Amino acid sequence: MVGTGPGSTDYITPAAGKALEACQVVVGYKTYLDLIPEFLVDKEVVSSAMMQEVDRCRKAVELAESGKQVALVCGGDPGIYAMAGLVFEIVIEKKSSIKVDIVPGLAALNSCAARLGAPLMHDFAAVSLSDLLTPWELIEKRLDAAASADFVIVIYNPKSKKRITQLDKAREIILQYRKPGTPVGIVTAATRENEKIEITTLEKLPEAEVNMQSTVIVGNSTSFRWQNYLITPRGYHHKYSLSDK
Amino acid sequence: MVGTGPGSTDYITPAAGKALEACQVVVGYKTYLDLIPEFLVDKEVVSSAMMQEVDRCRKAVELAESGKQVALVCGGDPGIYAMAGLVFEIVIEKKSSIKVDIVPGLAALNSCAARLGAPLMHDFAAVSLSDLLTPWELIEKRLDAAASADFVIVIYNPKSKKRITQLDKAREIILQYRKPGTPVGIVTAATRENEKIEITTLEKLPEAEVNMQSTVIVGNSTSFRWQNYLITPRGYHHKYSLSDK
Repeated sequence: MVGTGPGSTDYITPAAGKALEACQVVVGYKTYLDLIPEFLVDKEVVSSAMMQEVDRCRKAVELAESGKQVALVCGGDPGIYAMAGLVFEIVIEKKSSIKVDIVPGLAALNSCAARLGAPLMHDFAAVSLSDLLTPWELIEKRLDAAASADFVIVIYNPKSKKRITQLDKAREIILQYRKPGTPVGIVTAATRENEKIEITTLEKLPEAEVNMQSTVIVGNSTSFRWQNYLITPRGYHHKYSLSDK
Repeated sequence: MVGTGPGSTDYITPAAGKALEACQVVVGYKTYLDLIPEFLVDKEVVSSAMMQEVDRCRKAVELAESGKQVALVCGGDPGIYAMAGLVFEIVIEKKSSIKVDIVPGLAALNSCAARLGAPLMHDFAAVSLSDLLTPWELIEKRLDAAASADFVIVIYNPKSKKRITQLDKAREIILQYRKPGTPVGIVTAATRENEKIEITTLEKLPEAEVNMQSTVIVGNSTSFRWQNYLITPRGYHHKYSLSDK
């Protein structure tokens, strides 16, 4: 499993490059593979826009079982809300003896935080709003818990074409604990050509443009906006002095 | 601000490499700079084991104000529990007009999750046990909230030479909500020569070796151990089938 980060090849680690170089077959979602043509030269490529995630992982496991060295490419970090778990689940169910290595990549939370400045300087919770595989009640419970304990909240999968109400519900839950002026950062398509960065507030979040490629970061009670940055201070009481000596 | 990832240069992105190449001065903690000698050739290097974080950031800001292009090097990801926020706080306080770019790196949670297999497939909370800048009551509240809502919990700064009781207290809080057999992964010095990976349980956590270089990942109610991996399934109810068609 090879993580290729947010999109630009500038964020693919040498470790990921070596794994791609060493393999015979590259399996991946077409959209991601199209971003890394230089790594596909002389490789057997199993790419499909149509194949579902489960089929793609199963295909990669099958190819590995046939004795080939396979790189299953995954945008972002395969270890964060991604395919690493699915591969293990398939390997376990098939009682396969292939060896699985995870090469980490920059996840959306790394790249989006960097684009926003410094929102994740303190404790944070990552919550996906996709209720496809998780009961919505549990997602609500987590949002409530994270908001009540003043975690910075990183919202994955805030919206899709079909799921358009969850972000509003999440906002309502968070507003029970945080001020309407709490800063919120939205990064869409980080590091890609169509990258868009917006900083707004919980109050004005419904007016912001959020889509399938967006990650939303809601500040904690100490987070603030400065210029086009979203910053969370490190400490709740300043034991250090920032001024010149 | 340039993130250099977990330690091995294999995990330094081309974007970070380019930022180091473009700069005139490299500022950083000696331990991190010693890991990347090839990036320091022909650079002015401001390295110190003695300088505190605040002094290091202030020095970097001063050098940038003098007109030099400065790379402030940070292990892991400067955007996750690291120095990015401090740099912004100093820039704001000094009303400095320097431009700050954050080049993300692989954080401990990325590299440790990869080493453990797939623990972060579902919602997770990151909590630092350092009570230097955060009241311990708030840390307890967050642990309680995260445990009660079945978040996978990534524990940063579990122990230091001086702070040795916090991890036991955290374990007690989590045990109010999770079974003693809940799997726990501990990764120490990920990707470095002295890397150590251990998978244990909440019950047996006090017997495990945890130090300043460790990150501890506590599974949620569905996480399980398989061989030497810690795996969290993606869904709470399987809508997909993993078996062959």
